[in-house]
Amino acid sequence: MSFTLAARTRHMQASAIRDILKLTEQGHVLSLAGGLPSAEGFPLEDLARASERMWRTQGAQAMQYASSEGLPALRAWIAQRISTPQWRVTPDQVLITTGSQQGLDLLGKVLLDAGSGLLVEQPSYLGALQAFSVYEPRTVAWSADEDGPSVADLLQARAQGVRAAYLVPSFQNPTARSIGRARRQALAQALPDAGTLLIEDNPYGELWYEQPSPEPVAAWAPGQTVYLGTLSKVLAPGLRVGYVVTPSDDMPAASALRAKLLQAKQAADLHTSGLSQRLVLQLLEDGFDLDAHAAGLRARYRAQRDVMAEALRQHLPKGCRWSVPQGGMFFWVEGPKGFDAMAALPQAVAKGVAYVPGSAFYSRDADLGRHTMRLSFVTLSEAEIREAVARLADLLWAHPGAHLRVASQGW
Amino acid sequence: MSFTLAARTRHMQASAIRDILKLTEQGHVLSLAGGLPSAEGFPLEDLARASERMWRTQGAQAMQYASSEGLPALRAWIAQRISTPQWRVTPDQVLITTGSQQGLDLLGKVLLDAGSGLLVEQPSYLGALQAFSVYEPRTVAWSADEDGPSVADLLQARAQGVRAAYLVPSFQNPTARSIGRARRQALAQALPDAGTLLIEDNPYGELWYEQPSPEPVAAWAPGQTVYLGTLSKVLAPGLRVGYVVTPSDDMPAASALRAKLLQAKQAADLHTSGLSQRLVLQLLEDGFDLDAHAAGLRARYRAQRDVMAEALRQHLPKGCRWSVPQGGMFFWVEGPKGFDAMAALPQAVAKGVAYVPGSAFYSRDADLGRHTMRLSFVTLSEAEIREAVARLADLLWAHPGAHLRVASQGW
Repeated sequence: MSFTLAARTRHMQASAIRDILKLTEQGHVLSLAGGLPSAEGFPLEDLARASERMWRTQGAQAMQYASSEGLPALRAWIAQRISTPQWRVTPDQVLITTGSQQGLDLLGKVLLDAGSGLLVEQPSYLGALQAFSVYEPRTVAWSADEDGPSVADLLQARAQGVRAAYLVPSFQNPTARSIGRARRQALAQALPDAGTLLIEDNPYGELWYEQPSPEPVAAWAPGQTVYLGTLSKVLAPGLRVGYVVTPSDDMPAASALRAKLLQAKQAADLHTSGLSQRLVLQLLEDGFDLDAHAAGLRARYRAQRDVMAEALRQHLPKGCRWSVPQGGMFFWVEGPKGFDAMAALPQAVAKGVAYVPGSAFYSRDADLGRHTMRLSFVTLSEAEIREAVARLADLLWAHPGAHLRVASQGW
Repeated sequence: MSFTLAARTRHMQASAIRDILKLTEQGHVLSLAGGLPSAEGFPLEDLARASERMWRTQGAQAMQYASSEGLPALRAWIAQRISTPQWRVTPDQVLITTGSQQGLDLLGKVLLDAGSGLLVEQPSYLGALQAFSVYEPRTVAWSADEDGPSVADLLQARAQGVRAAYLVPSFQNPTARSIGRARRQALAQALPDAGTLLIEDNPYGELWYEQPSPEPVAAWAPGQTVYLGTLSKVLAPGLRVGYVVTPSDDMPAASALRAKLLQAKQAADLHTSGLSQRLVLQLLEDGFDLDAHAAGLRARYRAQRDVMAEALRQHLPKGCRWSVPQGGMFFWVEGPKGFDAMAALPQAVAKGVAYVPGSAFYSRDADLGRHTMRLSFVTLSEAEIREAVARLADLLWAHPGAHLRVASQGW
């Protein structure tokens, strides 16, 4: 007998990142592919101490079923932490999720019908594209100029049946592109006329290396933005603690959206690990300074970024282009003219280096990104980064387009 | 502006259990409603010790991203633990999920289109109904006789466009009904002709109080059954560790189903908490005897069950009917003729006792269960159980149907 699978499974594809990670587990491959933060950045001693205290004082509660919204104290702490002078977030707006990946799935579930328009940058975060694709949206490409995603495209959303616009405003994955304050405000101001909801995903906002990120778009459009955050980048991904901030109460539709998200969360996994939630709360109660920790991470990652920037300058052929990222975890590198990053990946792995081919980040017309690669600078040590880039350069120098000089180093 | 929600949200309803739990948080209500295991059954000292060791030896790995399938050692342990002489499960078949609730969501996602037939007992587990309803199936009522769900109904599945049949074979929630070996075999044998996949959900199998549960249906139909299990009942729900066992490799369609489930898992939350998974592994490595722990839980719950059985016999009016459950966590009580359990709930709460109205567990035609209640015997202490049943009896004695004797105490 054979099973009949749901039609939506046609849109569910194995992740290129995932297959590559499998590939690089064998042998001595230096992987620039994964977005794994350096384990040296985890505050392990503080976490272990907090864990011990947590077990002594609230082990039974941590092991019990908990509310689907998440623990009230954690929701309150998140609301307070992300609030800005401009943007006041209340605990009621915060839904704790099993990583922010779950937030994307829940939003797809409650917002997208098959064929609903979804405005998405090209390229964009692969995990979001995967989560949304389950609900079979019609993706509408969001074009961009040098200041970020186009306001004009957003204004056409209503006419194009767009139900949600997905945006990673700060140090986007994969391009590291960050949107300035003026464009954020312009996008926020366009939302009422656009007649669409903005899904603002901000995993990298605290990983800035030159200057702090501007306030989120949500600060100027609190009633039309669903904001996603996570503790994965600034604390540790293994906790699987993320959150969704629903629109502010002054929007009449906000409470319906909030209720449906909560029901979807309950149906999806009842609640996020009580162990993880209480560990985080205990860590904070013990006086752990997350701001200082984030500053330490920034210093570490900035140094690693600088090493990769220097290695790329030193080794890569002239036909390549990139910008030095001002935050986040990735370099976005354009290979030489005619280079096919996907096709070249097995050779790269044979040379002992791995990357994610940029085409994986395009929801359609992947030809656009065929020559691009995403390189992580947060996983490997500085010495490994130098060696990995040297190996990558070997591959690229062998390409016929490697010796053609290009006009600019920007993009 | 208002948001447009996905059409599937029309099928997503607030859970009656959830609303009741909220209600009973206020004041001195003795709640028989929740399915929360007693915290006294958690092996907190062992867990705390394992946690300390886990942080010393593998804290960094626990905090890092992990594979979507779950940790290989945990998958192997589960495969070994649930295998029987008849049913050999391999680690490749095991997908770790964020509670078995997530397994239900993932199965709905990959198997059900809007309008797909779904064969479901009446009544059945509310959380499964909620998880599946997101995918808008057409539920087909699975009738039952005294030995369990009808084989004839299963054989009509193909003709009725049924894509999956959902079954909790051991100590079902809410009725505590358990299916004997012969009916299990008969259902398994019917599956090829039925042309449908069986979703066998077994959270309560180890909570038997008289004799061990028969082998799962999967043992006789390993290629046509997706089996769900969890550590929530036998260890602790706060861990959020469950699992899905996909059909055996000898079914050609099994690998496609497994691949799609994995992609759905990845899109849903990347992976289950590494902290929880490694804590469980460390506990086992430290020599924790889960079988002995389960035996201890059975002794505890059996005693609580006996207290409730005695209290019901002592206090409830003649017009009520119930059976003493042979396993699981619940009594399923039929109130007096004409009793409306949902309508009476506010009075019950006013009297200081709460239950779940049975109508919540029917996917349709809830009139069938209008007079029924689900009472948990695992959450409260023995003294509290006695008092709670006495308060419930007060309510029921006040009902006009309370004094009518019924023919039998079975159902």
